[in-house]
Amino acid sequence: MPTPNRQVVLAVRPTAAVDAKTCAVVESELPDLIDGQALVKVSHLSIDPTIRTWMDDAPGYLPPIGIGEVIRSGGGGVVVESRSDRYRVGDVVTGMVGWQEYAVADEAMGAMAKIPEGIDLAVALNVLGITGMTAYFGLLEVGRLTEGDVVVVSGAAGATGSSVGQIAKIKGAGRVVGIAGGPAKCAQLIDELGFDEAIDYHSENVSRRLHELCPKGIDLFFDNVGGKILDAALANLAMRGRVVLCGAIAGYNDRSAAPGPANYTSLIIRRGSMEGFIILDYLARWPEAQAVMAGWLADGRLHHAEHIVDGLEHAPEALNLLFTGGNTGKVLVRVS
Amino acid sequence: MPTPNRQVVLAVRPTAAVDAKTCAVVESELPDLIDGQALVKVSHLSIDPTIRTWMDDAPGYLPPIGIGEVIRSGGGGVVVESRSDRYRVGDVVTGMVGWQEYAVADEAMGAMAKIPEGIDLAVALNVLGITGMTAYFGLLEVGRLTEGDVVVVSGAAGATGSSVGQIAKIKGAGRVVGIAGGPAKCAQLIDELGFDEAIDYHSENVSRRLHELCPKGIDLFFDNVGGKILDAALANLAMRGRVVLCGAIAGYNDRSAAPGPANYTSLIIRRGSMEGFIILDYLARWPEAQAVMAGWLADGRLHHAEHIVDGLEHAPEALNLLFTGGNTGKVLVRVS
Repeated sequence: MPTPNRQVVLAVRPTAAVDAKTCAVVESELPDLIDGQALVKVSHLSIDPTIRTWMDDAPGYLPPIGIGEVIRSGGGGVVVESRSDRYRVGDVVTGMVGWQEYAVADEAMGAMAKIPEGIDLAVALNVLGITGMTAYFGLLEVGRLTEGDVVVVSGAAGATGSSVGQIAKIKGAGRVVGIAGGPAKCAQLIDELGFDEAIDYHSENVSRRLHELCPKGIDLFFDNVGGKILDAALANLAMRGRVVLCGAIAGYNDRSAAPGPANYTSLIIRRGSMEGFIILDYLARWPEAQAVMAGWLADGRLHHAEHIVDGLEHAPEALNLLFTGGNTGKVLVRVS
Repeated sequence: MPTPNRQVVLAVRPTAAVDAKTCAVVESELPDLIDGQALVKVSHLSIDPTIRTWMDDAPGYLPPIGIGEVIRSGGGGVVVESRSDRYRVGDVVTGMVGWQEYAVADEAMGAMAKIPEGIDLAVALNVLGITGMTAYFGLLEVGRLTEGDVVVVSGAAGATGSSVGQIAKIKGAGRVVGIAGGPAKCAQLIDELGFDEAIDYHSENVSRRLHELCPKGIDLFFDNVGGKILDAALANLAMRGRVVLCGAIAGYNDRSAAPGPANYTSLIIRRGSMEGFIILDYLARWPEAQAVMAGWLADGRLHHAEHIVDGLEHAPEALNLLFTGGNTGKVLVRVS
């Protein structure tokens, strides 16, 4: 009797937060491997806000997930069977595994990569994966971080935001301010991650605090959130300030919930710019950044935190954490 | 008995369109000239949307006009009296003359410049002044126009917009689409100014038409308007499309009337950018651009239109034309 493959598929397009109706658990048979393929037993899923955008039938940078299809997702696991010279049994690989117990690594697709020696899979999925790469290239390439810059990060206690703030400090930012929800997260930003200041958007007036903490304005705003927080940052932009648009989670579950930033006209009077990016465009340059980040990890200069949710069937709840602020650090689902 | 100087001053800060209450006509005495100064009899005022923003007590790129102060404005006239070696009686000069019959040109301020030989003052205020310079540097420097670009301009029948479209054609844009209000303006864009296509925002669905006319997306959107039109353009941005933010007239008379562009998230999925600028930053480079524009004028490649309103006391109504779409081409007030 063949091993069943448990999967989470898109049953119904969500119009709000996901749940067991929109993301249904099903069982299917494992596919037969053909030459060049290997079977990966998935151990961890990388839970990223962008997954929610793939569930909408709306234009995006990748096609929407089809109804009945496995939820597209990064993750990693161990090769347990192989008809490939590239993937050997026992190899630990990462790539777009999807929300399922077993995924196929295919040489022809080339989307799975071995993780570096001596690095834990969970850490690799955080700091050396989509999350860390997004922080690195978003801040340094898109944002063109310059020594002395006043840098502000939204979603600062999240996986990407916490790396952004730390990289900014390592690279010589003048002041790094994180915006996060709640006193515990704010304390962690300062005490553990080395941010200079933190703003608690639950209890503080973000625009007023930004004005106090950045009296000469924000040189670089790295935005994961959108909505009112983006508007507050635009109101406090420095001359020639840059806004890096990484994400806009305020609107992912409810597009009507996030009005456009009325203060975008600050870009005119302050000669500012606002630029978006997709980390996949930098894929060819990941190795250089991974080497740098691995070095910072080894030196103890880059802290990381993983928020582990156990069980494939809890992946939808894990995704929701990103929008309710229920996590600190990188959300991963431990599948096996 | 001294010559009186009629002036229009800011009597009350407007919260909507300006009128005779907010902009009051007063008479004052002419100032006595000191060494280095000259008296300019103002003949034309340059009516620009940005004047309306200076009337608000809100952060801007210049301080707000004070209550009781003459309305700040570009314009030009003839030197009628001089205690300066730089300004001779009979010289035709342009600069920040303000809404008044007589202005003082001051060597120490250095803000008045003689216009080139053989060019009419009204044309100089249009094509070689703030308007033409804004079109030139906004399109070529901020927007980095590239040959073959699909260019879209809002407020296309206005002074800046009509120059933007023409410069784009001269510089090799692949397709130039203008957005304007009403069939007459749209016909003029195509028949007289050489735009490839025009969209009438009064009667057409702008987003749908942009999708039809720019099926591969907009490479460069030059925005004078903001509001819904900016949102429609963002929805149709090409990969790595650029938005040049020149103005946002949809919100100048009523800031609550122009919501932020909810489609700014297109900048993420299309890897786009949105950048603002203020033409005063390019002041040192005006001569190079003026020489180029004067050449195109002489060759007949650059068409221009001036919309003349007679009488200083009608300056407020002239300003309102910019927001109601009542003008075609550059609005000037003929003072004397």
